[in-house]
Amino acid sequence: MHIASFQGVQDAARQIAGQAVRTPLIESPALNERLGGRVLLKAENLQYAGAFKFRGAYNRISRLTDDERARGVVAYSSGNHAQAVAAAARLVGTSAVIVMPADSPRVKVEGVIAFGGEVRTYDRYAESREAIGEEIAATRGSILVRPFDDPFVIEGQGTVGLEIVEQADAPLDQLLCGTSGGGLIAGINLALAARSPDTRVVGVEPAAYNDTQMSFAAGQRVTHAPAPGTICDALMTPIPGELTWPINQRLERVVTVTDAEAAEAVRYAFRVLKLVIEPGGAVSLAALLAGKVETKGLTTAVVLSGGNIDPALFAAIIEDRFTPIGA
Amino acid sequence: MHIASFQGVQDAARQIAGQAVRTPLIESPALNERLGGRVLLKAENLQYAGAFKFRGAYNRISRLTDDERARGVVAYSSGNHAQAVAAAARLVGTSAVIVMPADSPRVKVEGVIAFGGEVRTYDRYAESREAIGEEIAATRGSILVRPFDDPFVIEGQGTVGLEIVEQADAPLDQLLCGTSGGGLIAGINLALAARSPDTRVVGVEPAAYNDTQMSFAAGQRVTHAPAPGTICDALMTPIPGELTWPINQRLERVVTVTDAEAAEAVRYAFRVLKLVIEPGGAVSLAALLAGKVETKGLTTAVVLSGGNIDPALFAAIIEDRFTPIGA
Repeated sequence: MHIASFQGVQDAARQIAGQAVRTPLIESPALNERLGGRVLLKAENLQYAGAFKFRGAYNRISRLTDDERARGVVAYSSGNHAQAVAAAARLVGTSAVIVMPADSPRVKVEGVIAFGGEVRTYDRYAESREAIGEEIAATRGSILVRPFDDPFVIEGQGTVGLEIVEQADAPLDQLLCGTSGGGLIAGINLALAARSPDTRVVGVEPAAYNDTQMSFAAGQRVTHAPAPGTICDALMTPIPGELTWPINQRLERVVTVTDAEAAEAVRYAFRVLKLVIEPGGAVSLAALLAGKVETKGLTTAVVLSGGNIDPALFAAIIEDRFTPIGA
Repeated sequence: MHIASFQGVQDAARQIAGQAVRTPLIESPALNERLGGRVLLKAENLQYAGAFKFRGAYNRISRLTDDERARGVVAYSSGNHAQAVAAAARLVGTSAVIVMPADSPRVKVEGVIAFGGEVRTYDRYAESREAIGEEIAATRGSILVRPFDDPFVIEGQGTVGLEIVEQADAPLDQLLCGTSGGGLIAGINLALAARSPDTRVVGVEPAAYNDTQMSFAAGQRVTHAPAPGTICDALMTPIPGELTWPINQRLERVVTVTDAEAAEAVRYAFRVLKLVIEPGGAVSLAALLAGKVETKGLTTAVVLSGGNIDPALFAAIIEDRFTPIGA
């Protein structure tokens, strides 16, 4: 059994080189000035298929045996993992079936189809995506590519952390990263534990989807209460992953942001940073802008994890027509 | 009299270091795939104040004598130079009066004010911005910072070309850049003539504002015919600059794009590249997407020159509600 490790992150970096984008670490004088410290933005919205997810998906799918490749892959995802798996499958030369919530952003469903993936929708509130995925895997003999509870996926995502440390021109006091199943931040934790152990890693979640924060308080994996939905569709996993949770014990803490704060970060990124970020990809920036994490005099790395947002929602946010759910 | 030169571009690079952003050269696998070649995007929308203009403005204003700094600066601009001058003046510790068309995008006017600049509006079709600027300079003793016909401004903009050559990991077959007064592309020509002489430099203009293209055909500086307006508000200068025109003789050619093509490039940048680009900053990308320049099997550098766009226009473009002027 392969266990996620820093060595695996280094190996993933070699595996994805030339396929994944080595995204830039961007600095904005305007943002630095506003926050009174240095902020280094890892722009994973510029990644292939618009989110960090391609790293883990390609690291997993490119290691399939010939026999596995002939049978194809299956994945369940709210959208970014879906597109990443479809894109990686096409590059590797295999087929992909993607199980997606019926209420996924259209842009993410279209993305999967554009990459040649086959979409199977399900009801987020009535059906189990895990069960559907497992059934397709069993019936077709396809390989299930899990969105976070797979060591190769965790190690692929960890290359984000490795690159941040390599690209930064100063020691990092802290790093903020969104948390859902916890694959990205687990990979980053593996990388930083080895390469920048003094950097505090802080998780960020939508306020009503704070299962990692609750699990932290409880000392064990906890499922968050049913919630009314969030514009952070990429961060709706109900419970931390089995493999990611032990690694994420080393987090310094977990903070939360409201949908209004996430929307404000999307608007700020449009207006000042000139980047297209989806709400779920903007929660770390939102935490800084909302003053939930101290930045004065510090060097802070922030992962902008994705940019796949429907035009109608983006337009509403930048034109100040957006009303948060439940507001 | 200082004459713009490659040595001056190198000197400008030292002068602006630590103040201007060394913007990333971005590559998108999806764009490469669509065009059948490599495209390297110089993301000057990520520059301080949202456009390349800060480079030239800071290179000029940071060289003021103590006496000149006490008297302040004045500039006329459709917007991006305006914001850049205001931002550079604030950093240097001097005051700035900016003469702007009354129909400038609101986001650009607000940008000037946010940087502490004083705005004086004028009628683009009835008044001469040059005359107003010169008058303020004469009355107040302020230093006029020209948007392109200033050797230090040209050299500052030339650092874009220097960085592209330094950042590229392969020889560049061609480089595309928008052309208005011609300061940016003149600076780039100085840099490439010295550092990458075999790279073909192609200018891109809005179809109705093709004074550089017309001048090229005529062999001398020509003013374009009165035009109905364009969403490329950053590229509305009526005639090539006096200082920029001789340098830009080395252009390979000049191509034009329609407003609809510029809008499609803005939409593509939102949807696929996850970058916020203003129409005038997207004309080079538009020329590629519209098939006006061959890219198959080539390595092409493209300058995305700015990202200051009003939210209402951006929303209309990404939601497919935009109708070109005169369409």
